[in-house]
Amino acid sequence: MRTLTREITLNVPKRRAIVSLHRQVEELVRESGVREGLCLVNAMHITASVFINDNEPGLHHDYEVWLEKLAPHEPTSQYRHNGGEDNADAHMKRQVMGREVVVAITEGKLHLGPWEHIFYYEFDGRRAKRILVKIIGE
Amino acid sequence: MRTLTREITLNVPKRRAIVSLHRQVEELVRESGVREGLCLVNAMHITASVFINDNEPGLHHDYEVWLEKLAPHEPTSQYRHNGGEDNADAHMKRQVMGREVVVAITEGKLHLGPWEHIFYYEFDGRRAKRILVKIIGE
Amino acid sequence: MRTLTREITLNVPKRRAIVSLHRQVEELVRESGVREGLCLVNAMHITASVFINDNEPGLHHDYEVWLEKLAPHEPTSQYRHNGGEDNADAHMKRQVMGREVVVAITEGKLHLGPWEHIFYYEFDGRRAKRILVKIIGE
Repeated sequence: MRTLTREITLNVPKRRAIVSLHRQVEELVRESGVREGLCLVNAMHITASVFINDNEPGLHHDYEVWLEKLAPHEPTSQYRHNGGEDNADAHMKRQVMGREVVVAITEGKLHLGPWEHIFYYEFDGRRAKRILVKIIGE
Repeated sequence: MRTLTREITLNVPKRRAIVSLHRQVEELVRESGVREGLCLVNAMHITASVFINDNEPGLHHDYEVWLEKLAPHEPTSQYRHNGGEDNADAHMKRQVMGREVVVAITEGKLHLGPWEHIFYYEFDGRRAKRILVKIIGE
Repeated sequence: MRTLTREITLNVPKRRAIVSLHRQVEELVRESGVREGLCLVNAMHITASVFINDNEPGLHHDYEVWLEKLAPHEPTSQYRHNGGEDNADAHMKRQVMGREVVVAITEGKLHLGPWEHIFYYEFDGRRAKRILVKIIGE
């Protein structure tokens, strides 16, 4: 069995943003030498997501509006978690979008559909956060 | 290590529908010869989900109503993604229901609870879409 | 390849509760002897979730309020699934919070960020339910 383990560090300058991880994950699969296996990509922080969807800015804007409707940031006093913090909504938005993706590796490449693109979604940025890529296979 | 890779193609004649994948995935596990391992089942398209829940038509109707409330299709003009398209809501519904499931394989079979059933959820059908099954183990 | 398979049984005395699985999963990783691999933890029942988030009671209270807003239990008559049952909302809440987590194992330990904590979320308790832990690697 071959494995590769890599932490990617990001520091998103805003509270929220969607950042592509796609190229980096593709390169790590190549580097791993794994031909057949699985690739796990997960946020290591609990106010962020890794998800797969369309690389289209209009949709990313729509996600912003939609998640704000499902789990509003304001008023921050509506959440008990917000004692010294103000990020309870970030913990909810992350559950909707998910913590991780698991992607198949076939013939040495990510096995994805035509529009599948791997993204990181930051819900409480302005500090360093990590994403984990773990590849296993042979 | 043994692996099996299979794409399943579906063409759902309506915009939305829930379709069982259960038997097909069971058969692929048998075909793989894997006794202990993991089975990934994921939508290869970004307006569809693979999920595990109850094989009960009343619940499937309830999901339809509920997802339409969380991410309404109409008015389509509320979404920026809907320039030439009208499926922004499908990209949201899919995030709620999830892209993929990972199921354990134990003693050559899917290791599931009594009511766990694997489904595909189409949110923007009327064209061919693919689902990926990737099995690894030994 | 090494594998470990273990079912954990819980009987939550209330309809809903969040229960830590963290220590048990850590111990199973140790017991497995796996140094590099993946650990799948999933609910075996379709009205429960396994998720990773903060071990903070204020946030757990916020999840309760939030999920009740997204998928209300009452009136139970709003759901077709509720013929002889009253748990349709539990099947929805579980989709928001997710069925499973997949966690990397690196150097013999769960590879997690500083605040990542593995929980079980019961949405329809008062009876025995099972969680599956499946570890593969080497």
